[in-house]
Amino acid sequence: MSEDVRMTLDAVRTLARTVLLGSGLSQAHAEAVAETMVAGERDGCASHGIYRLLVAANSIAKGVVAVDADPVVSEPAPALVRVDGGGGFAQLAFERGRVRLEEKAHGYGIAALALTNVVHFAALWPEVEALAERGLVALAVTPSHAWVAPAGGTVPVFGTNPIAFGWPRPGDHPFVFDFATSAVARGEIELHRRAGRPVPDDWGYDADGKPTTDAAAVLNGAMRTFGGHKGSALAAMVELLAGPLIGDMTSRESLDADAARGGSPIGGELIVAIDPAGFLGDAVADHLARAETMFAAIEGQGARLPSQRRYAARARSLAEGVVIPPALYRDIMALVPGE
Amino acid sequence: MSEDVRMTLDAVRTLARTVLLGSGLSQAHAEAVAETMVAGERDGCASHGIYRLLVAANSIAKGVVAVDADPVVSEPAPALVRVDGGGGFAQLAFERGRVRLEEKAHGYGIAALALTNVVHFAALWPEVEALAERGLVALAVTPSHAWVAPAGGTVPVFGTNPIAFGWPRPGDHPFVFDFATSAVARGEIELHRRAGRPVPDDWGYDADGKPTTDAAAVLNGAMRTFGGHKGSALAAMVELLAGPLIGDMTSRESLDADAARGGSPIGGELIVAIDPAGFLGDAVADHLARAETMFAAIEGQGARLPSQRRYAARARSLAEGVVIPPALYRDIMALVPGE
Repeated sequence: MSEDVRMTLDAVRTLARTVLLGSGLSQAHAEAVAETMVAGERDGCASHGIYRLLVAANSIAKGVVAVDADPVVSEPAPALVRVDGGGGFAQLAFERGRVRLEEKAHGYGIAALALTNVVHFAALWPEVEALAERGLVALAVTPSHAWVAPAGGTVPVFGTNPIAFGWPRPGDHPFVFDFATSAVARGEIELHRRAGRPVPDDWGYDADGKPTTDAAAVLNGAMRTFGGHKGSALAAMVELLAGPLIGDMTSRESLDADAARGGSPIGGELIVAIDPAGFLGDAVADHLARAETMFAAIEGQGARLPSQRRYAARARSLAEGVVIPPALYRDIMALVPGE
Repeated sequence: MSEDVRMTLDAVRTLARTVLLGSGLSQAHAEAVAETMVAGERDGCASHGIYRLLVAANSIAKGVVAVDADPVVSEPAPALVRVDGGGGFAQLAFERGRVRLEEKAHGYGIAALALTNVVHFAALWPEVEALAERGLVALAVTPSHAWVAPAGGTVPVFGTNPIAFGWPRPGDHPFVFDFATSAVARGEIELHRRAGRPVPDDWGYDADGKPTTDAAAVLNGAMRTFGGHKGSALAAMVELLAGPLIGDMTSRESLDADAARGGSPIGGELIVAIDPAGFLGDAVADHLARAETMFAAIEGQGARLPSQRRYAARARSLAEGVVIPPALYRDIMALVPGE
């Protein structure tokens, strides 16, 4: 097969579930994980689409993931929710804790949800978008594996440590951003390596601490943070908030725990949710309208809002389906049981 | 006078209070504001030291500040505190709300403090440092005036919109960062303008949207965000969290309200505080120790922790006092009543 494969989103969902179930995941996990891959593919995020089936299957094959973990919800303080994921993928743990987080945000004005002991390999935007669609302001962070050097160093300490934020926009998709505090997402470097393309020389260092354009060397060496010492400070914040603060691993500890199996990061995630009605009472609509004025000032000068491309891709995908590169399709089909 | 002036921190405090009282501030405000200037000078942050006396005096002279405002504390939701600053400087409003924020963080696990209707011209690190010294994890954000263009544009929408974070370190100064989401702090550009020095051409645009090295042109045009679209996304988040979310102004609204008087930004600030004991119970010490392992991995490769220079300057200043440039000292002495 040498041509792009066009698929409906339903077909992507079915394929994703089939591969995930075939690799041993329980039904509940397979459905939760498949949804985030469908969302990535739908929104034109190739590095978080069904490409991630290869990543998930690898983590499962390496024994990194508890395939039938049953997440356990607890409430360690009035405005805090914890979900112990039992070593399973994060998606189901988030789903199990989401409603309690929403209730607590409404009840107390602000609340936080910690996912612990979960395997993480998906983007955070589906989570903050889901919360913002329900009217909440949401901030989510998670460490990963120690792949990223602090500003001023060349030895990995941080993960790619994304920060995601969601803001409700009545009648429109939420304002959502989700970016790695590394110079780029690791998935981007992996895609460069798969394609045999060089990377810019400011993405990372080789194992000797020298800048390099060799994607594989960066993957084996250290990535850089974005934005110099500011991005590095944010990466440290992510480590602290979704590591020691919630009793879970730092990116270094997660990589050590992986013991060179090459699995996805195991650890924690912190999600903070704020109810706009907490501070605003019945004036929420008035003040959300003032946010819209700011968005208009950004778009009015030709600058883009974050997620604008993603929402545009979503509209196209819902109408026309998505296109999968042939090599990726072949790799995924090799994982389908009986193929 | 053409030589640097060496002063003890007590002398800086006395001078700051004298100037602030002389400019009409009430005793409570003068003391609160003076402390943040002493802290800036002490920690080697020239742009947030007693240089800011000129800024404060200007805002007061222009009628932007309510000089004897009495901040009013309320609790709009169980885990939320609001302080209406009544148009006065932010420092006293923060002090009035701090204890309730701490109590709520301990009681609910997470809590937020909104300062509204305050004039802001100080750094945020004194606030997150104070909370972290009391064992809390703290995040603070505030918009300013619309001086900063979004990535992809050249027209100001955002303020310099700092993000500050504090993390407790038992037996040591807290881990603290505080940075503008603009490419640099506006105070830095002002210091360049005062010194007649050019700025790098990636700090901002002139009023025609062209990159420039003229500090005055950037001050009249638009500053850039740090870190491209990621910094721009964070700047938008700061606007939303400490503007519409708490019922206060965006940076554009604040600049419009200033009506070309050239005063400091008026608006809001959001501070989130999390009690580590909320998620960790009696295991706080164990997990804070794991954070120390991460800090050691950063410092062990020769990279700096944020605030490390500031703490080093603090140790020197406490021992030897601080040095004030002669031109600045002359400008400040001109504000002392009866001089």
